Amino acid sequence: MTVRFGLLGAGRIGRVHAKAIHGDADARLVAVADAMPEAASAIAAQYGCDVRSIDAILQSADIDAVVICTPTDTHADLIEAFARSGKAIFCEKPIDLSLARVKSCLQVVRETKAVLMVGFNRRFDPHFAAVKAEIAKGTIGAVEMAVITSRDPGAPPVSYIARSGGIFRDMTIHDFDMARFLLGEEITEVSAMASVLVDPEIGVAGDFDSVQVMLKTATGKQAVISNSRRATYGYDQRIEVHGALGAVSAENQRPVMIEVASAAGYTRPPLHDFFMTRYTEAYAAEIAAFIAVLGGKGEASPSGEDGLAALALAEAALKSVAEGRTVRVAEVLG
Amino acid sequence: MTVRFGLLGAGRIGRVHAKAIHGDADARLVAVADAMPEAASAIAAQYGCDVRSIDAILQSADIDAVVICTPTDTHADLIEAFARSGKAIFCEKPIDLSLARVKSCLQVVRETKAVLMVGFNRRFDPHFAAVKAEIAKGTIGAVEMAVITSRDPGAPPVSYIARSGGIFRDMTIHDFDMARFLLGEEITEVSAMASVLVDPEIGVAGDFDSVQVMLKTATGKQAVISNSRRATYGYDQRIEVHGALGAVSAENQRPVMIEVASAAGYTRPPLHDFFMTRYTEAYAAEIAAFIAVLGGKGEASPSGEDGLAALALAEAALKSVAEGRTVRVAEVLG
Amino acid sequence: MTVRFGLLGAGRIGRVHAKAIHGDADARLVAVADAMPEAASAIAAQYGCDVRSIDAILQSADIDAVVICTPTDTHADLIEAFARSGKAIFCEKPIDLSLARVKSCLQVVRETKAVLMVGFNRRFDPHFAAVKAEIAKGTIGAVEMAVITSRDPGAPPVSYIARSGGIFRDMTIHDFDMARFLLGEEITEVSAMASVLVDPEIGVAGDFDSVQVMLKTATGKQAVISNSRRATYGYDQRIEVHGALGAVSAENQRPVMIEVASAAGYTRPPLHDFFMTRYTEAYAAEIAAFIAVLGGKGEASPSGEDGLAALALAEAALKSVAEGRTVRVAEVLG
Amino acid sequence: MTVRFGLLGAGRIGRVHAKAIHGDADARLVAVADAMPEAASAIAAQYGCDVRSIDAILQSADIDAVVICTPTDTHADLIEAFARSGKAIFCEKPIDLSLARVKSCLQVVRETKAVLMVGFNRRFDPHFAAVKAEIAKGTIGAVEMAVITSRDPGAPPVSYIARSGGIFRDMTIHDFDMARFLLGEEITEVSAMASVLVDPEIGVAGDFDSVQVMLKTATGKQAVISNSRRATYGYDQRIEVHGALGAVSAENQRPVMIEVASAAGYTRPPLHDFFMTRYTEAYAAEIAAFIAVLGGKGEASPSGEDGLAALALAEAALKSVAEGRTVRVAEVLG
Repeated sequence: MTVRFGLLGAGRIGRVHAKAIHGDADARLVAVADAMPEAASAIAAQYGCDVRSIDAILQSADIDAVVICTPTDTHADLIEAFARSGKAIFCEKPIDLSLARVKSCLQVVRETKAVLMVGFNRRFDPHFAAVKAEIAKGTIGAVEMAVITSRDPGAPPVSYIARSGGIFRDMTIHDFDMARFLLGEEITEVSAMASVLVDPEIGVAGDFDSVQVMLKTATGKQAVISNSRRATYGYDQRIEVHGALGAVSAENQRPVMIEVASAAGYTRPPLHDFFMTRYTEAYAAEIAAFIAVLGGKGEASPSGEDGLAALALAEAALKSVAEGRTVRVAEVLG
Repeated sequence: MTVRFGLLGAGRIGRVHAKAIHGDADARLVAVADAMPEAASAIAAQYGCDVRSIDAILQSADIDAVVICTPTDTHADLIEAFARSGKAIFCEKPIDLSLARVKSCLQVVRETKAVLMVGFNRRFDPHFAAVKAEIAKGTIGAVEMAVITSRDPGAPPVSYIARSGGIFRDMTIHDFDMARFLLGEEITEVSAMASVLVDPEIGVAGDFDSVQVMLKTATGKQAVISNSRRATYGYDQRIEVHGALGAVSAENQRPVMIEVASAAGYTRPPLHDFFMTRYTEAYAAEIAAFIAVLGGKGEASPSGEDGLAALALAEAALKSVAEGRTVRVAEVLG
Repeated sequence: MTVRFGLLGAGRIGRVHAKAIHGDADARLVAVADAMPEAASAIAAQYGCDVRSIDAILQSADIDAVVICTPTDTHADLIEAFARSGKAIFCEKPIDLSLARVKSCLQVVRETKAVLMVGFNRRFDPHFAAVKAEIAKGTIGAVEMAVITSRDPGAPPVSYIARSGGIFRDMTIHDFDMARFLLGEEITEVSAMASVLVDPEIGVAGDFDSVQVMLKTATGKQAVISNSRRATYGYDQRIEVHGALGAVSAENQRPVMIEVASAAGYTRPPLHDFFMTRYTEAYAAEIAAFIAVLGGKGEASPSGEDGLAALALAEAALKSVAEGRTVRVAEVLG
Repeated sequence: MTVRFGLLGAGRIGRVHAKAIHGDADARLVAVADAMPEAASAIAAQYGCDVRSIDAILQSADIDAVVICTPTDTHADLIEAFARSGKAIFCEKPIDLSLARVKSCLQVVRETKAVLMVGFNRRFDPHFAAVKAEIAKGTIGAVEMAVITSRDPGAPPVSYIARSGGIFRDMTIHDFDMARFLLGEEITEVSAMASVLVDPEIGVAGDFDSVQVMLKTATGKQAVISNSRRATYGYDQRIEVHGALGAVSAENQRPVMIEVASAAGYTRPPLHDFFMTRYTEAYAAEIAAFIAVLGGKGEASPSGEDGLAALALAEAALKSVAEGRTVRVAEVLG
């Protein structure tokens, strides 16, 4: 079976997905849509597919599934429309910045029995996936604590930050999903601290650039997340998980693995620039996983509910910072 | 100048200090005291010094300085007595489990102008000291975040835990001191999470075995501490500090640095067993630093006030767990 | 410009090149030839190209270049034929097992002014290429010594070994090329030691499985190569180069970079299985480099002469083992 | 039992041994002798021992054992004298630069049944000893190849080199001993290459500064040694051993184990300066091993015969360079 794809959104992340679809023997990119015609045309030219409008894709009989890479505020509407049209949906995170909107959207997904997978790509990184596999094998025994480090090489433009929903919903949300993925248990309590240390303009925009979050499950398992919008040495992405029998960790990745020794010491090159190069394999693997689901192999995961849960943690973290207290997730999920 | 030492307490940590004094060309161990005569005699035999009572040491004209390694509940009284007798004092942490008692004790130290140094040995670990030196040189720019990992190979007996003051005062206290040391700024806010995951008996004793703490200074610098009473792979002691220009870290230490490659992969041996072997060099260096202070080189550091500050953070962490909120340090310091 | 390729040989390495050609935006796979029709058909089906005979490819006006992946004993004849037909040639190493035959073949290449590039893929590994780039930048100063480790996970079948030309021509030849690449100077002296330690059958077949070679240039630069047909922990491929100002090295690569810590120590997974996975990026990069040459960017490198030089070192190594002495390369090159 | 030591030679290495003796609970330094009275007095003052002449030590009833750290050309005479006087002898390597002289000296040792241990300190390095222990445990199966890297931070003065016996006898000799130690089998063939790359004056003095040696045993096990008198990044001391089931290695050691991450990459500090700091623990352990032998625990090892064997390999390497051929050790041992 070959899955025939429509791509909604031909921006940076759209191009990543176009390449992943093209490279997969079980997929074919049929059409691309974008508000910017040149962006869509460029992808169409490169991979030999059509340019169509979103509406046309919605009605295309030769398209089985869509990948939604449009701006966040269009995600929920598009999910609902494509769910109703019977197409399978892969949507970039987040579904929406509003918990209420996500809930109503997922209600439509449930009613239409649509297949929906959410783009928490890091679960598919081969190294992080191998960490999870060791946990699943029981190598470290019962999980006790996860430590997640995620530091961006540099902050996005303040204009982006202003409409991003803030660092917890925009950046930490990946780590919230990772914490749930690694602990394997629902998180019940959240406590966060936040500062503006990188750029005062970020504070002016009402956001933070340096945050830490502690999470706890009902049985007392814990996770801690450390985020910054600044890392001069590259894209800092590490996880470690401790259990009753030991620990398992995934270190940072670098494009070139050499070492220079001199009177100044031993130097290895910086890490990957950013997510495009760091998570190349993860992007290909998540599309492959989506295709496998469409081929009948298991349920879509991460699901819409996983998207909702991560967003709820972001909400709780914001509330924790605002009120200076530990917030129960039930408070924000209602 | 040779500093002539009296050693109070001939237990495990007393023997560590006896060895450090003996190995220092500028020090001489003159006498040892212990409630258990055999313990004192063993040290006396090994290093060729006298066994005396604490009272005799207090009145010994041939002793310049004492190292206090007796049980915690005797520390404050001994500090006051030796401060009044004009002897220099090196005291194992903590000064006392009660903030009020520490304060009154430090009042006597101030009045008598006694030299008091507190045994936060980790500041003197060559690797951690090198991290601090890089920060001081400006290598990483303005400090933003410290991440401190401290996991013990195994929990102490529950009987010990019951009178230890709890994990924050007994174990995390070292990390609180390290956070202050690395951030170089006073901590103003504390938030902690705590679980019993290792041994339910620890919970029965009213303590926790798995805790995480977030700290913040007035300017927004942050630290996070991760503690567990369990680490099957050895004594897990790591620090990393992030700043505006980069990061500096110290990895774990292991006694034997070999690697075996086989069909099962690449394996390095476990870490040091525990603090006695991990911090051998640190114990020698802290005694050398104390001797240097007595020789006129700078002020005693870590000071009694450093001991008080770390204890206040432990107090605040306990309060944070109990009340489910971020606690200002000013609340507990009064 | 798009380079139109014919692929000669549809075996294991042929499939690697087919994939690299397909993945290159500047290349198109037009036809494949193989003595085994099913092998050719499989590639044709996967990449949508024709199956043609070698003769048909030789006469195809729609083919600009060929990649020769047929058995070694056909290489020289095919190079000559395609050189005369005016097509560009990428040939897997070695050109031939006989120095004389390689020389006569290269004579035809020179006369026809054909473009010929030889498949020493390791030069294109991003990590090894980065080592070379550091040397070229002058980071380590004048090069003094190269250390090359190359150990296969397991020996090929003895039937393969019997017609391979022996370990020096089959396996070490890559390291001979790497030594020339890293030292940047022609090698003049060779001394080798060889044993049968892995499998006595290899000895019965007249070959060795464990060899070491020392090389020297006219100015005294040195290299040492260490080879074995056995490495339980994966495909061991390391280089280090020392110069007047320091050293630069490339460590082994592994597909999954995690670490498990337990009472048994710290364990990382084994290395890549073998060259197909270890050198994936290198195979793509060497085809890209060949295409760049056809687009007018520089000379083909590694050239036919590089292929000859590496084979001469293999010849000299064999002679060194046989005669128990250091052999001057001039002796075998004549 | 306490072993009472006389120390012959109060130079750099003499001070290292004095400290090791002082730090050993089972040893006492009774007297020191040196042609330079101030050197001897300095050690005597520091450790509270006598200054005596070598003759006086020879006749001292209160001395059980001597450590010989005098210039190389006195070693054999002193060994013979002290062997005849019935004292146990620890002698720094080499016994002599002449194979014949070493043989005649060892004849006296055998006749007098004297205890003689030779100072190949590296066998006692905890990391190298752990490598050997893994081999002995069978972790890597039957040993096949050892790779020994030994690079000095800088060349000694040419005046020293001129009377050192040359790099093979002065520097590589440690690696020859290590190769025998690791292979666990007598070496039968030697092939060496040598260049002058660091300092032309070394060549003028008739020596080399950059050498490589291949070794082989009767059963075909191999070792390769790589030496240079130059390493800008510190004292480069590594071993790796490959066997039928896997490999075991010991990496370089550094005094401070931190890492700085910045836009320039990840940098660790240089290695130890030189052997005094790199092998501190090894020097203490070898004296402890000597004391254990005197206490009845096993035979002295490395023995005088080990010293002879390593020197013979140096001799063979020199001959191999001179004659451009593989040399059988039997040729030089006669």
